[in-house]
Amino acid sequence: MSQVFHTEEFSNGLTLVAEAVADVSSSAITISLPSGVCFDPSDRSGSAAVLAEWCFRGAGDRDTRGLNDALDALGCQHHESVLSHHTVFSATQLAWNLPAVLEIYADILRRPALSQEAFDPSCDLIAQDLEALEDEPARKAMMQLREKFYPDPLGRGLYGTAESLAALTAEELRDHAAKHMNPNGAIISVAGKFDYDRLRGMIGEYLGDWSAQAPAEIQTTPPPRGITHIPKDSAQAHITLAHETVTLSDDQYYAARLAATVLSGGMSSRLFTEVREKRGLVYHVSASYHSLKDHAGMFTYAGTVPQKAQETLEVTVGELRRLASDITEEELAKAKTQLKSSLVMQCESTGSRAGALASDYYHLKRLRSLTEIADAVSAVSVDEVKEHLAQRPAGDFAMLVIGPEPLDTSCLNV
Amino acid sequence: MSQVFHTEEFSNGLTLVAEAVADVSSSAITISLPSGVCFDPSDRSGSAAVLAEWCFRGAGDRDTRGLNDALDALGCQHHESVLSHHTVFSATQLAWNLPAVLEIYADILRRPALSQEAFDPSCDLIAQDLEALEDEPARKAMMQLREKFYPDPLGRGLYGTAESLAALTAEELRDHAAKHMNPNGAIISVAGKFDYDRLRGMIGEYLGDWSAQAPAEIQTTPPPRGITHIPKDSAQAHITLAHETVTLSDDQYYAARLAATVLSGGMSSRLFTEVREKRGLVYHVSASYHSLKDHAGMFTYAGTVPQKAQETLEVTVGELRRLASDITEEELAKAKTQLKSSLVMQCESTGSRAGALASDYYHLKRLRSLTEIADAVSAVSVDEVKEHLAQRPAGDFAMLVIGPEPLDTSCLNV
Repeated sequence: MSQVFHTEEFSNGLTLVAEAVADVSSSAITISLPSGVCFDPSDRSGSAAVLAEWCFRGAGDRDTRGLNDALDALGCQHHESVLSHHTVFSATQLAWNLPAVLEIYADILRRPALSQEAFDPSCDLIAQDLEALEDEPARKAMMQLREKFYPDPLGRGLYGTAESLAALTAEELRDHAAKHMNPNGAIISVAGKFDYDRLRGMIGEYLGDWSAQAPAEIQTTPPPRGITHIPKDSAQAHITLAHETVTLSDDQYYAARLAATVLSGGMSSRLFTEVREKRGLVYHVSASYHSLKDHAGMFTYAGTVPQKAQETLEVTVGELRRLASDITEEELAKAKTQLKSSLVMQCESTGSRAGALASDYYHLKRLRSLTEIADAVSAVSVDEVKEHLAQRPAGDFAMLVIGPEPLDTSCLNV
Repeated sequence: MSQVFHTEEFSNGLTLVAEAVADVSSSAITISLPSGVCFDPSDRSGSAAVLAEWCFRGAGDRDTRGLNDALDALGCQHHESVLSHHTVFSATQLAWNLPAVLEIYADILRRPALSQEAFDPSCDLIAQDLEALEDEPARKAMMQLREKFYPDPLGRGLYGTAESLAALTAEELRDHAAKHMNPNGAIISVAGKFDYDRLRGMIGEYLGDWSAQAPAEIQTTPPPRGITHIPKDSAQAHITLAHETVTLSDDQYYAARLAATVLSGGMSSRLFTEVREKRGLVYHVSASYHSLKDHAGMFTYAGTVPQKAQETLEVTVGELRRLASDITEEELAKAKTQLKSSLVMQCESTGSRAGALASDYYHLKRLRSLTEIADAVSAVSVDEVKEHLAQRPAGDFAMLVIGPEPLDTSCLNV
């Protein structure tokens, strides 16, 4: 499969990246703005989440109702996500509606109403998201683990706190928007069916004269790490662990991804086999790779009944450590097939493809073809994975458990 | 887009349905066996769920480890789901691995090991699934609502009870498998890239001489319906409601789907606008259509903080009822675009497409093209939706709430 990429860097710091996909009817777009949760003022955490909600409550000549009507009438399926560094607006629609959707998003970006009357309901919804997290302990544990693992403010939780949300004012948040809803560092990615000249022309017309702000600086402080137990009378103990690994732009990136696949890539993966299948210890166990620009982690989750939690922790940590010494040729070959297959299959979705383009450009300043990735995956040797794991051993864990009882964590220090 | 369908009915009652999709690299397959949860013996509920787990613990010449290794080495992404009528094995892989994957699934279907040593761990995992549901109250509420809404055993919960799982024996479950893992009424659907003659030949070779059992009969008893409150010290009140609508094979099916889309199809939908946006009442609200062969329901969920639960219930029920009287041309036009767009976009995934083929064949005994569906959606008038809603008004609700306090449900009886 040959791939056709387009990249256009506008003078205000906005970049358009695009990939034409043959024989699809849809176009997917992601708009990544440099207004992620790490830019929230520290006593106003939750700002980015409230802002993402508020932006869709009227823009240009349309009120909230008019805006929602217009997007729905175009069959646009959209969602908004707030990440560490970016706020991402994603939208998928049939290709012929892309121009009309783009025009609406230009209003959302440059002429959001940010009205006083829509401010309180926007805050209320994020406050409810925060409260609802109490009924989703697995998700809450993983979110709070990130906060412990990454240098502050990079791992900060999305929804802030009851106090920070209550303290937020419309005026402050408008100032925050003016500073961070910024073309400088923004990435627009499009995958699917489109006429590239027309697409570039529209982005230029709508957003080319959007004034840039200087990029915001982030001061980080070292992560707290350590071990936390949040007592909860839950049915399961939700055990989460994180340890450091290399970032997406590192030479050892593919070795790290393959190591994660051996650990947790399928039913024959080590965690699944050793923890779930042989010992029947857990309801769910997985390890996943996650990268920010300058920091990356391997995040492990295990959910199990409280009486099996101690053994689950010990076996899981044992597997994370054992990998460095005894990964085999056969396991690696299997992991390569899995990684390459899942990549190709994922890219059959225009939405996933648009997300991958934006991620590549943010991390690497260029786009990788599937062939480049497949070749790089194929080239990794067992020795390279072992060397990578020797340099980045599973250790210096951040750990967080939500469940009835604390665990004996001496196995983390061996 | 022109679509090429294939259908082959084998003499043992197995049907193969397939659709070639241009310019993709993957092939998705679903195997729907007539061994859903409704066939679980009533004092052995959870049988189908345990069996689906047990089937993947060795088959043909492979033990558990060998089976998992083989599927992972083919880059096969698979999952198993137990529905009311069917157990569904789904697998997606690159097209050139489809023949090898099919060969493995033939072993799983016809030569599963079902060994004694793998039985207890399979039961344990389902018991853990059941226990883990306690930490997912939204999912638990919807699952238990189905049980109240559909005639027993059609809405039965997946995981059984602690008692029914403890009572289950390997010998009983082997008998159950022999009776219900049956080609008679099974549907295999394939979507993506394949050589149809080869595919049909392989299915014929592997499964054509698989002996058929008589189809199992189901005796239903009227659903309990009514109102249930499950007290829980949760952060949110999880409110679920269900009322009757027409099945997928009914003439009014498209009217029912459009009514659901007006209620809950996007950010401008009635539930989203009236409940979430204007009143800021809920964290999440949605209504969705669900059809079995002879029964169908509209299922509504709202999650909200306990102090707003009463108002949320009343506004939600008000919206479900109001629809019949005042749906507009503009709303219907928007709903048609949404429904058609989401359909086209969904079908860009070979996995979704394979699922849709199996569903069509089960409900209609034929396959619908996207053009047929789009034309049928376009043809529905406002009067037809109103007439449908007049005949199937939102009433005779089944309701289930998980949360700290019971609600005043007099609004359901107006």
